[in-house]
Amino acid sequence: MTSLVAVDWGTSSLRAARIADDGAVLEERSSTRGILTVPAGGFPQVLQETCGDWLADALCLVSGMAGSRQGWREAPYCACPAGFAEVAQSLTWIAPGRIALVPGLSCEHAGVPDVMRGEEVQVFGAMDLLRQRDGTFVLPGTHSKWVRVREGRVQSFATFMSGECYALLRQHSILARTLPAEEPPLDEAAFTRGVHHAQDSGSLLRSAFSARTLALFDRMQPPALASYLSGLVIGEELRARGSEARSVVLIGSAALTARYALALRTLGVAATSLGSEATWRGLWALARTLEKT
Amino acid sequence: MTSLVAVDWGTSSLRAARIADDGAVLEERSSTRGILTVPAGGFPQVLQETCGDWLADALCLVSGMAGSRQGWREAPYCACPAGFAEVAQSLTWIAPGRIALVPGLSCEHAGVPDVMRGEEVQVFGAMDLLRQRDGTFVLPGTHSKWVRVREGRVQSFATFMSGECYALLRQHSILARTLPAEEPPLDEAAFTRGVHHAQDSGSLLRSAFSARTLALFDRMQPPALASYLSGLVIGEELRARGSEARSVVLIGSAALTARYALALRTLGVAATSLGSEATWRGLWALARTLEKT
Repeated sequence: MTSLVAVDWGTSSLRAARIADDGAVLEERSSTRGILTVPAGGFPQVLQETCGDWLADALCLVSGMAGSRQGWREAPYCACPAGFAEVAQSLTWIAPGRIALVPGLSCEHAGVPDVMRGEEVQVFGAMDLLRQRDGTFVLPGTHSKWVRVREGRVQSFATFMSGECYALLRQHSILARTLPAEEPPLDEAAFTRGVHHAQDSGSLLRSAFSARTLALFDRMQPPALASYLSGLVIGEELRARGSEARSVVLIGSAALTARYALALRTLGVAATSLGSEATWRGLWALARTLEKT
Repeated sequence: MTSLVAVDWGTSSLRAARIADDGAVLEERSSTRGILTVPAGGFPQVLQETCGDWLADALCLVSGMAGSRQGWREAPYCACPAGFAEVAQSLTWIAPGRIALVPGLSCEHAGVPDVMRGEEVQVFGAMDLLRQRDGTFVLPGTHSKWVRVREGRVQSFATFMSGECYALLRQHSILARTLPAEEPPLDEAAFTRGVHHAQDSGSLLRSAFSARTLALFDRMQPPALASYLSGLVIGEELRARGSEARSVVLIGSAALTARYALALRTLGVAATSLGSEATWRGLWALARTLEKT
């Protein structure tokens, strides 16, 4: 097998890894050259600057927003259900056999489309790392994804604007007045109180106001309120997913997956957590699939 | 009965009316001297400038944020259940027998307080105007209130940050990129589609992302998307209230109550709408209660 250069090219960051035939990550690099910083036509040069020395004779697979309309070239979404085979067949080749963009996935619920770009590779990586071909995979973040996998293929998924809505409430709403400007360390008691309150309230539109009234009546101090609000938002996401699963796989940064794991545990759901290794493993598993086909 | 000067003193506006003994509104004035523009100690002067010529021999009742901690003087919340009698007994007198601040109401759900300030007067006014002593009263706005009234007293209420969250999503979220900067006229079909979608989605955190994907797939044009998002947010509020009532009383601006009435009708709930007359009627009815006691 040709050695692999795996690239995760997002909106605000660019990460690359050189990966051995057996999947071992040999070397990693990262930069702030997210797609928003790259001028039209500038993608080949930025890739060269980042990891040109790795590219000779290597296959390079690029996942993430580089395949969006604002990126290197638009790699049309692959419709669910989709597994390794469907995604491998839908690559957008920049240089045939050498550099390809991995497409995102799309699905449809009640006449409304949903999309992801980059997370599908993490799910594939998690499946491979955990040898798990069925289950619910959760990717918390600005736009959290809940992904249902059956027999190694993504059946459907749902996006929640949780990270973004937390930031909006935190920075721009009336709640900003009583919350500390800097994010304080997690107050677990306040956080789990928020998670529980979200289950009863029926909507974040309602529960969010409780962060204001608890401050108004001096029943919670500002540092605890930030954790409480985080619990309300993450708890809302879990409420909406309801009884989807009794155990899930979390993929994301250590800080965020720890927070979700705590919220899930509060509600009696078990979680296994993975980090960035899922991305590299997903691109490696995809390359292996390519080789076989 | 002494003639009444009714004042609705909010965060960003000041409105006053001279009201006859029979409740007829004789004259109205308004200004932009909301409490945020008034320096500490400056409230008596602003009231004089606004309607000093009306005050001789008149009773003056002031509702709204003037009674908040940031206002003229803090008028402590009156706990629910509360009707005319409880509120009349809880007035904060600035000048005994002449000028009083009407307290807001507080209630408690699942160990969390909720508050309103000003809306209680509108509910009292609507009860008096409609001769209705029971039911659900809805006051849409930045922070919408759903108020349950039984035998002429507010039993409990719930706040939804709907107007504020709509503005946050509209102006500061990723959705802002695909929405027109100016608020377009209401597209009823897109709005009701949003209301319906909100019933199925389980959470605004999820449904809001559909405004992005519908744009991404060119399935809805930007002007329609603004109405769709409005339908999602208002629809979320109605979803969370669920089967609370088959008919409600709406109190608010004509544009906003029309939008809520449409959303409610879409879900099979009837609505009666009232505007600012409810405020004046509520303060007048309160003055009448004072006179009797």
